[in-house]
Amino acid sequence: MFSKKQISKKSTDLSLWYNNVVLRAKLADYGPVKGTMIIRPWGFALWEGIQNILGSAIKEELKSPNAYFPLLIPLSYLEKEKEHVEGFSPELAVVTIGGGEELAEKLVVRPTSETIMYSMFSKWIKSWRDLPFKVNQWCNIVRWEKRTYLFLRTSEFLWQEGHTCHANALEADQMTRDALAVYQKFVEETLAIPVLAGKKSEKEKFAGAKTTYALEALMPDAKALQSCTSHDLSDHFSKVFNIRYQSQDKKLEYVHQTSWGFSTRNIGALIMVHGDDNGLVLPPKIAPTQVIIVPIDPKDNTLIFYSKEIVDSLKKAGMRVDLDLREAQTLGYKFNDWELLGVPIRLEIGQKEVENKTITAARRDNGKKVTIKKGELTEELQHLLDEIQSDLFLKAYDFLVEHTFEASDYSDFRKIMKDSKGFIKAFWCENPLCEAKIKEETKATIRVIPFEQPKDIGSCIYCKKPGKVLAYFAQAY
Amino acid sequence: MFSKKQISKKSTDLSLWYNNVVLRAKLADYGPVKGTMIIRPWGFALWEGIQNILGSAIKEELKSPNAYFPLLIPLSYLEKEKEHVEGFSPELAVVTIGGGEELAEKLVVRPTSETIMYSMFSKWIKSWRDLPFKVNQWCNIVRWEKRTYLFLRTSEFLWQEGHTCHANALEADQMTRDALAVYQKFVEETLAIPVLAGKKSEKEKFAGAKTTYALEALMPDAKALQSCTSHDLSDHFSKVFNIRYQSQDKKLEYVHQTSWGFSTRNIGALIMVHGDDNGLVLPPKIAPTQVIIVPIDPKDNTLIFYSKEIVDSLKKAGMRVDLDLREAQTLGYKFNDWELLGVPIRLEIGQKEVENKTITAARRDNGKKVTIKKGELTEELQHLLDEIQSDLFLKAYDFLVEHTFEASDYSDFRKIMKDSKGFIKAFWCENPLCEAKIKEETKATIRVIPFEQPKDIGSCIYCKKPGKVLAYFAQAY
Repeated sequence: MFSKKQISKKSTDLSLWYNNVVLRAKLADYGPVKGTMIIRPWGFALWEGIQNILGSAIKEELKSPNAYFPLLIPLSYLEKEKEHVEGFSPELAVVTIGGGEELAEKLVVRPTSETIMYSMFSKWIKSWRDLPFKVNQWCNIVRWEKRTYLFLRTSEFLWQEGHTCHANALEADQMTRDALAVYQKFVEETLAIPVLAGKKSEKEKFAGAKTTYALEALMPDAKALQSCTSHDLSDHFSKVFNIRYQSQDKKLEYVHQTSWGFSTRNIGALIMVHGDDNGLVLPPKIAPTQVIIVPIDPKDNTLIFYSKEIVDSLKKAGMRVDLDLREAQTLGYKFNDWELLGVPIRLEIGQKEVENKTITAARRDNGKKVTIKKGELTEELQHLLDEIQSDLFLKAYDFLVEHTFEASDYSDFRKIMKDSKGFIKAFWCENPLCEAKIKEETKATIRVIPFEQPKDIGSCIYCKKPGKVLAYFAQAY
Repeated sequence: MFSKKQISKKSTDLSLWYNNVVLRAKLADYGPVKGTMIIRPWGFALWEGIQNILGSAIKEELKSPNAYFPLLIPLSYLEKEKEHVEGFSPELAVVTIGGGEELAEKLVVRPTSETIMYSMFSKWIKSWRDLPFKVNQWCNIVRWEKRTYLFLRTSEFLWQEGHTCHANALEADQMTRDALAVYQKFVEETLAIPVLAGKKSEKEKFAGAKTTYALEALMPDAKALQSCTSHDLSDHFSKVFNIRYQSQDKKLEYVHQTSWGFSTRNIGALIMVHGDDNGLVLPPKIAPTQVIIVPIDPKDNTLIFYSKEIVDSLKKAGMRVDLDLREAQTLGYKFNDWELLGVPIRLEIGQKEVENKTITAARRDNGKKVTIKKGELTEELQHLLDEIQSDLFLKAYDFLVEHTFEASDYSDFRKIMKDSKGFIKAFWCENPLCEAKIKEETKATIRVIPFEQPKDIGSCIYCKKPGKVLAYFAQAY
């Protein structure tokens, strides 16, 4: 049974608090094999919300229909792209026995699907008429991990991976940016998490990509968390998988490709960014239940009748609403329980409410209570849900701004990274050695090189030679 | 490019026709590893329809929320239930290398999730208050196959598996039947496929179950196809995974369990049952596009304007509608193409239609054309879609009835199974030897023992000793 004491304070020990919340709110649990997790119904409902809202955008805005490709990939396919196999080799789970026999060729459990998909694309794409070719897949992915960090780092995770083929480099680059823009809109507007967008450095990019774009969020310990990535693969894979099309002037050309993914680790970010000492705090747009109705006495028929009327009218208005009629639990237990689960609004219904034709609404995010007239309930709750959604984003945005610094020189950089963490905006000469030294000395890596660059680029924060770009540095999950 | 000639006749060679349709309609393709397949967007849209409609029933009627459990299961878990591991051993894909190292314990890619789930249930279930405990999972499954039959037999397939725990045997049996009833309603009402429901024989039941219930459909070659199964697991697994609860009178009791699954093989049944020599024929309730609008001239603005008005009004009425404005293809090509894809209704829009404010609607299933007044279009199309849905079911139902026989004696049984195939209703003494002999001599197995049994049971069709049940026999996929 849950009691508040079983959750440690968020401000005291973030990762202990995080694990407590994930387990107590029954979002997830540890699997029997190291590195694995079970996503329990309340956690999976968050993923279903993501699949529903982000999934619609992928279909409608990015025009990428869903499909499904095999889990098991011949190892030789991965080996076709040199950087790709080097990047993924240390993380592979390998099937060597199938149907009771040693396999002639080893099969890897997909760590990502570029190679298996592209071997098929070469068969399907023939002409400029087949382009752009777009497909998306929601599936499970395995990348070996020995330490589990629920949602944030697990050997198996769920994601969506979009893959597209284009006639030229310009279109592929635009697609990569469009996918990132769809992600950013979703993360900021639905998950209420502000992010920095931009390009990855050569060192941090995807194994096999020409360019990787990414979104980076800031966690409460002022460490960055990569939300998702979008890769411009150029013709790196189409050359090895021979994906060619006949152009309008009858020439055989290699396609230009992109891939982009969004995973269950974002549920981890959602928990971390908004949660508090009482548990989860869910933004209304992603909350599986937006409004929970708790009659003060679950056996009182007057209260039940009044509550059910409200359930019906709120459901009709399209809200996700639930009614707590459990009899074995105390009222205090129920309040704590729904707080732990992060439901945005709790409605309390007692005799006073029935008599006055009012409802008392309590906000999960700030605890404020308001009394609402029954006739105005739908409208007022919709307004309240919108307000909570935007308040959560603004709170997180303020935190991001307060924890984004400019460093005057490298000693300042080191001091900030030691004392405050957060993002540091600094110029960089694009020399990987400077990047490596900074990482070694401060644990900070280049998270993104923002799309909008200042006109005047100062000297490199590390070597003081002329800089080439402005970059955001941070320690990262 | 598609031409009708590339599809062989359904009546001449069913399996060649089937493979032609699946490949030409881009429902699926062969994967590079033997036994694997790719589900392409048009095929996956059918699965999404299944997930949407069946998924809602599983949540709302069977009260089983979705969750996600790990793909990789320690081999020792499977070995805990003797019958279970014996049943699945020959089909396992085994991971022996993880993260670059030989694993201390082999992991199997899930062939079904009983063992991994139930190891967790024993941790989560403590009290009678936790019961009934229900969970459902949509996921990929691997059971090794060397020969691929697209959708019908593949090493990897997608399914939904529901798992429940109950306080007693009665509740578990009821749950098993409830799940089967939800499946039957879905298969008959949405996929328009009539099925026989009942119990499996001991030989045909799930490895580890006390009782398996199933639905059986009849394919055009009069062979049966198992649509789905629902298992009463009794306490077979709860005893080995130690899933116990404290009852209201403070005793420790083992839970009674059920599991039930529905897979992508049903897409194969859908194709086979309704398709014709021109390709797919989709029941309106599952068709990704229900109405396709084809303007006779895709460059004529009057036709385009008229068509777009129609698209908007049909979408507003909740229909799934698409508009074909491709310019590179001839009208004949387009008509063939939408027929191949099985879209239930095609609307043809020409000058005559615009002038008369009418629309010509052609039915995919029987080719009949009707002229509809524009003002009555929504209502008439809704009516037509309902009619197509029920006509498809009735046609399949007639076929099932026509191919269900009663055998007067075993020589009659052999003759029917040789000449006509189909289902044969016959009495059986419940001796597995008779069952085995019948299979050996006629290739027919017991598909189901129906729930409703006649009052008088005659003698066993094989040994002529007193029979115990009426059973349906058939050759099966």
